[in-house]
Amino acid sequence: MTIKECAEFLRLRDDYLILTHRKPDGDTLGSAAALALGLRSVGKRAVILENPEITPRYAALFGGLGIFGASDGGGKTIVAVDTASPKLFPDNAKKLGAIAALAIDHHPSNTRYAENLCLDSNAAACGELVFAVLNELGADVGAETATAIYIAVATDTGCFSYGNTTADSFRIASETARLGADVAELNRVLFRAKSKSKIALEGYIYSNIVYSHGGRAAVLTIPAEILARTAEDDLENIAAIPASAEGVIIGITLRELADEIRVSVRTAPGCDANVFSGRFGGGGHAQAAGFSIKQPLADAQSRIAEAVDGLFGK
Amino acid sequence: MTIKECAEFLRLRDDYLILTHRKPDGDTLGSAAALALGLRSVGKRAVILENPEITPRYAALFGGLGIFGASDGGGKTIVAVDTASPKLFPDNAKKLGAIAALAIDHHPSNTRYAENLCLDSNAAACGELVFAVLNELGADVGAETATAIYIAVATDTGCFSYGNTTADSFRIASETARLGADVAELNRVLFRAKSKSKIALEGYIYSNIVYSHGGRAAVLTIPAEILARTAEDDLENIAAIPASAEGVIIGITLRELADEIRVSVRTAPGCDANVFSGRFGGGGHAQAAGFSIKQPLADAQSRIAEAVDGLFGK
Repeated sequence: MTIKECAEFLRLRDDYLILTHRKPDGDTLGSAAALALGLRSVGKRAVILENPEITPRYAALFGGLGIFGASDGGGKTIVAVDTASPKLFPDNAKKLGAIAALAIDHHPSNTRYAENLCLDSNAAACGELVFAVLNELGADVGAETATAIYIAVATDTGCFSYGNTTADSFRIASETARLGADVAELNRVLFRAKSKSKIALEGYIYSNIVYSHGGRAAVLTIPAEILARTAEDDLENIAAIPASAEGVIIGITLRELADEIRVSVRTAPGCDANVFSGRFGGGGHAQAAGFSIKQPLADAQSRIAEAVDGLFGK
Repeated sequence: MTIKECAEFLRLRDDYLILTHRKPDGDTLGSAAALALGLRSVGKRAVILENPEITPRYAALFGGLGIFGASDGGGKTIVAVDTASPKLFPDNAKKLGAIAALAIDHHPSNTRYAENLCLDSNAAACGELVFAVLNELGADVGAETATAIYIAVATDTGCFSYGNTTADSFRIASETARLGADVAELNRVLFRAKSKSKIALEGYIYSNIVYSHGGRAAVLTIPAEILARTAEDDLENIAAIPASAEGVIIGITLRELADEIRVSVRTAPGCDANVFSGRFGGGGHAQAAGFSIKQPLADAQSRIAEAVDGLFGK
């Protein structure tokens, strides 16, 4: 489905229920908020299904817009944003996600679970697609909508520093700034201000990256006891850190959760994170992907080490 | 002088010698490189005076363009970029700076030392002004020139994260990306890639910030043995880290050098770093200043702690 077709689809329907993915980030929430506000600006009813995993930082940014609600079970048009697979919905959205009429996404690994799919894997953020769709739809993009789009694009590009950042990402940021997004304040909240707990976490992270294979692989393990004293907000974007070390081709971050090990993979061009993660049943993008793996931690570590051996030789 | 007048000035003259400031950053070098290349594209002779303080990273980015040279003492049109005061020129440029025909700058503190001044203090980077001037001049902005402009804007905005970032900064970044600046690679080199020694240093820093006075003061001490295994490049911008913690009003970084303790002070608005540093014989700006203090480290620490008590009460 092209941007034009997607806008046409939205023009013809009403009563939108918008779904976000679990562990909601700035892109899924910003995309959903912009879509809800934009649809309302053209006279549609639109609400975002409450996401039980929203963090305080994002609740502060999006909570006051009056766009979140529970599902009333009525005949809604269900739209999922930034969600590659039905597995990625939070529990309260799983049934609804399975009958989604439309997914707007930028993950090449999208499983095509929705009836219709508007996908552009060249977009740095799903919010870039939502912005294009809203413009095509003739939506009124005011300061709140522009802010939501800015948050989506800025967070998914690591404040325009990641390899996915394009001329379009910058163009959209420029337009949202002109439309009223308070870039200075948003950047302060999203990127510059660090909680003391985040600083303590970074102290742990930067001291505990383990390099191997001639410095080409970097593995970071965050054990349960560190996670226990870390706020969820503080964990955003930490997966980029091991791969940021000079010479590293693949950076792998393991988080020891209660029931599983959550693994994030970041790679340099030439090494496919999506393929690597696919071997463990996960996926994502070529340079950023992830998967979950069973406890215990030591087994997970050695299975991953074997897979890294497979990339570089032992 | 407006952008238009500045372009007209450049159109009427020739034989440009471009000056950059000491401790050259991405903005002064990117502005100079773009100006030299853009002037050459319209048939002018233009060269940048060699800057003896250029760092290896910037030498790698700009050194291959064939735009640096020594002064031949001839009748040049001297243009200074991003340099607020003649004090800020490196030694080999001081005499030439005093007879500059034009300064292009974005510092409100520019002392108006040059015969003509094209100043816009709303620009996040001097490179934004150079880009506007080159467009006005009808210069051919190819990939190399676009790259220089991108480096100027991206570095002076902290990769678009600082409070100075505007819609124009993003627009110019978007245009330079379209014109051939390899944003992904430039961001990797400028912002994402960290040497393994820098990562180790950050592990130390983030683990050793000491908060006091209800979290309003943050003090970081980098002892001689840590400095001994750290490259000078890795120390760039570390003084900002203690003050980046939420709630911190004053962040103080002590480096234990061989002969003295070098102290950097960063403050939130409302707390004057210049005044604080002045008490120790130093100075700087309201939010960023510094001073040196005698060995031994323990004495320096306790004198500084007393001064912090003076700010907040014991």
